[in-house]
Amino acid sequence: MAHSIAELATSLGLDFAGDGALRITCAAEPAAAGPDALAMAMDPKYAEGLAQGQARAAILWPGADWQALGLQAAIFAPRPRWAMAGLSEVLDPGYDFGGGIHPLAHIDPTAEIGAGARIGPFTSIGPRSRIGVGARIAPNVTVGEDVVIGADVILHAGARVGARCVIGDRYIGQPNSVLGGCGFSFVTPEPSGAEDVRATLSGERQLRAQKWHRIQSLGAVRVGDDVELGANSSIDRGTIRDTVIGSGTKIDSVCQIGHNVQMGEDCMMCGMAGVAGSARIGNRVLLAGKVAVNDNIFVGDDVIVGGASRVYTNVPAGRTVLGDPATKLETQLEIRKVLRRLPRLAAQVARLQDAVFPSKDDSKG
Amino acid sequence: MAHSIAELATSLGLDFAGDGALRITCAAEPAAAGPDALAMAMDPKYAEGLAQGQARAAILWPGADWQALGLQAAIFAPRPRWAMAGLSEVLDPGYDFGGGIHPLAHIDPTAEIGAGARIGPFTSIGPRSRIGVGARIAPNVTVGEDVVIGADVILHAGARVGARCVIGDRYIGQPNSVLGGCGFSFVTPEPSGAEDVRATLSGERQLRAQKWHRIQSLGAVRVGDDVELGANSSIDRGTIRDTVIGSGTKIDSVCQIGHNVQMGEDCMMCGMAGVAGSARIGNRVLLAGKVAVNDNIFVGDDVIVGGASRVYTNVPAGRTVLGDPATKLETQLEIRKVLRRLPRLAAQVARLQDAVFPSKDDSKG
Amino acid sequence: MAHSIAELATSLGLDFAGDGALRITCAAEPAAAGPDALAMAMDPKYAEGLAQGQARAAILWPGADWQALGLQAAIFAPRPRWAMAGLSEVLDPGYDFGGGIHPLAHIDPTAEIGAGARIGPFTSIGPRSRIGVGARIAPNVTVGEDVVIGADVILHAGARVGARCVIGDRYIGQPNSVLGGCGFSFVTPEPSGAEDVRATLSGERQLRAQKWHRIQSLGAVRVGDDVELGANSSIDRGTIRDTVIGSGTKIDSVCQIGHNVQMGEDCMMCGMAGVAGSARIGNRVLLAGKVAVNDNIFVGDDVIVGGASRVYTNVPAGRTVLGDPATKLETQLEIRKVLRRLPRLAAQVARLQDAVFPSKDDSKG
Repeated sequence: MAHSIAELATSLGLDFAGDGALRITCAAEPAAAGPDALAMAMDPKYAEGLAQGQARAAILWPGADWQALGLQAAIFAPRPRWAMAGLSEVLDPGYDFGGGIHPLAHIDPTAEIGAGARIGPFTSIGPRSRIGVGARIAPNVTVGEDVVIGADVILHAGARVGARCVIGDRYIGQPNSVLGGCGFSFVTPEPSGAEDVRATLSGERQLRAQKWHRIQSLGAVRVGDDVELGANSSIDRGTIRDTVIGSGTKIDSVCQIGHNVQMGEDCMMCGMAGVAGSARIGNRVLLAGKVAVNDNIFVGDDVIVGGASRVYTNVPAGRTVLGDPATKLETQLEIRKVLRRLPRLAAQVARLQDAVFPSKDDSKG
Repeated sequence: MAHSIAELATSLGLDFAGDGALRITCAAEPAAAGPDALAMAMDPKYAEGLAQGQARAAILWPGADWQALGLQAAIFAPRPRWAMAGLSEVLDPGYDFGGGIHPLAHIDPTAEIGAGARIGPFTSIGPRSRIGVGARIAPNVTVGEDVVIGADVILHAGARVGARCVIGDRYIGQPNSVLGGCGFSFVTPEPSGAEDVRATLSGERQLRAQKWHRIQSLGAVRVGDDVELGANSSIDRGTIRDTVIGSGTKIDSVCQIGHNVQMGEDCMMCGMAGVAGSARIGNRVLLAGKVAVNDNIFVGDDVIVGGASRVYTNVPAGRTVLGDPATKLETQLEIRKVLRRLPRLAAQVARLQDAVFPSKDDSKG
Repeated sequence: MAHSIAELATSLGLDFAGDGALRITCAAEPAAAGPDALAMAMDPKYAEGLAQGQARAAILWPGADWQALGLQAAIFAPRPRWAMAGLSEVLDPGYDFGGGIHPLAHIDPTAEIGAGARIGPFTSIGPRSRIGVGARIAPNVTVGEDVVIGADVILHAGARVGARCVIGDRYIGQPNSVLGGCGFSFVTPEPSGAEDVRATLSGERQLRAQKWHRIQSLGAVRVGDDVELGANSSIDRGTIRDTVIGSGTKIDSVCQIGHNVQMGEDCMMCGMAGVAGSARIGNRVLLAGKVAVNDNIFVGDDVIVGGASRVYTNVPAGRTVLGDPATKLETQLEIRKVLRRLPRLAAQVARLQDAVFPSKDDSKG
């Protein structure tokens, strides 16, 4: 589908210049753009790419001299990624979920599917589950029994929603995402070795046989509106109460959220991050890629946890933390500066030893 | 289903007090408990919650004054999580696996399914596979050819069991768990760069083109009784022998176990932990969340590896280790203490340098 | 199937000695080898195992005295793993993908499937997708619309290939692998807290409400020849251009590759490694297990990243790096040496302080 520059600019709420009637059919990186593409060149560093490509129109940084760049039309984006969000929405080809409920889907007779649903082959919807209007469900999806899902859900291929989970509107389950696996909760009749270590913070402990007995998950997972769960990511159900994910929270691929976790609204959890059981996460918390959050701790509102950090203890609201163990950002940057020259620091100390304690053998230090 | 306090206490092997005929229908956290719920208040810190909720009965800590807490009946749990295991078993609603083999399941005519099986739609059981009595298999599950599975297996939606894998009784495969992907084993005709580095522990090496050739996995995965594999977790098959997981071992979500790994009995592997190829793990080993175990190393019986630790070398039996690289727990706690004040330590050394070597330029140190 | 030692040696391009007509049916570890097995004993350390087992033939290290080891025939392998690759290919039982397109598969009428395809039940191939000759596709697989896949693809159970992805020849998708989930790309109308931190590298920032708006993924994933994607691993589609994986690159289980990543040829990415969005990875790069590569950075050709390292900044071609943050290998080994005795170093500095500044209170240091 072709869009005119004037229409696009209007729909993005942005200014344009040049030939507003010029039509584009897709977006492209500047150097790869053909004559029908809108080149994404929101930063002066892309000017060279524009010269290499064939774009006649581009999204540019504010104040760019579009004519000098050889363009016939330009849209100006003061906040590039925000413009990208709008533009990608306009140009998104979307996914083909078929034209209704596929004859090879299996919908339990007691399930209720809202109007306008598109459901692919080999998808199973369990007893008594209720799915809102406008559902788009790919092939090979499983929804268990007694599930409640709001309007306009998208479930991609292989997405799973376990029994009794409750999900708001506009949930997106990426391929092979799992909402509602069992909690990983086991106990030994006598205190286990791990319990001894936690209690004493010492590696000394009595060894003994231990068999793990399962604590069943009586709770499910309860999810607000506008939540997304990434490919191959997993959220476990709760033990007594539900595991809870607040509205607007986005979870990337290959993430894990343990049983009983209470996560707030508008959080962002990047790839391969994990939150262990019973942790509580505030609102607007950002967990960068590969982050680990310990079980049973509290991470306050607006906390930002930098990439690959390990959070072992509570973090107060508003703090930015980094590292393993995570500390305040500024502290960690200082620590890392010293770490990098640690061998030199050790050599300095050795020389100081020699100078200050010339005859002393420090080998027993 | 309602349960009387007296019945519950008997089935949990615990003492109770008050109205043993009082009936509860579910468990709840104290503050959220309605009049038909059993409040989970095994610690004095929950006393306040009890006052907020409407519970008439609770599980309490031993010696609690249940009458002063406004209850009509109480059960006393000296080991709260152990009581939880029993209670959750009694109250578990379980999962609806249907009433037999669904007509839309595909069971190869040469497969043998034990009595009492419940198998959901779109599940495929391969040629010559044998599954024991009492199987509960969700929709969209795949069992390959020549698989042997014991009694009372539970395979949740999307669980995969690859060809020739052998599994004991009571295996639980969580949603989208994979037992029996191919081992990740490749070789270059000439030594690869990684081999050079391993041999010399030096970054200096000759660069050369290298194409990876696959080593096929002739082995499968062999699993004992009472093993659980978490959602989106994966265990690879072995190269010559089978990858082995001992009885009683529990594996959490989003974990990975490489080819040829030999893991003992009654281990616990928490979320996002990984064990690389050919590592040998003893019995009763606990790998906390996000732990990494290097390939080809040995971790002895009863070892506990603390959260997010990286184990690069053998660990003797009974040890508790922590950190990256993992060290004995006590050592790591000391290291972390110094790490946190490392910038200050560096400043101290700088001042000592100035005092001891006042005119010396240490920039070449 | 039985193979004679002479045939095997010829097909592996290796020398043999003894009874070339002796036939073996499988490979085994020396101690576990029966009389019909070829014992894998490419290193002298396996000599003892040979004595325990019943093998009549073995693959040995060059120069081994096969007769003294009690064997009737032997093949000599100067590069053991290379011999293993060839041998495993010969002995591989492979997987049973059935005998054609299963009647319970769903192939969209507009899809084109090459000659010789074997496709299992409950597998769905979407509209207009084209799959080359010789496809072997397990049950419960999903291929979206407008996908192009080359010849001799293997898609294991639960593998997903999203809409518009383009894949070369001989792709192997392990169970529950996901190629083509949506990119994890969101933006707030105003700069988010994370943007503030990135800009200032400071934890001080203004807190504000922020709602995440989705940037749709207009790109797909483009994959070369001979690529493998591991069980429960995920590669996201690109925002404007495609995410690209070069020919010959092998990706292990439970890995994640973010949107827009450009990965070169013949790379190897081991278990649980992750590459964040828009990172560029050269050719022949090796990412060991649990490695993390930051978003938007560049990792040059032939780089080797050691186990569990975190790469936050660009790495020039040919370098071997290790650690968190990753440094040159040699530097990190030095750092770790000091780290292990950091508490002792701190004690030394304390004693130096006392000696050099005897009356000074350094507590404000």
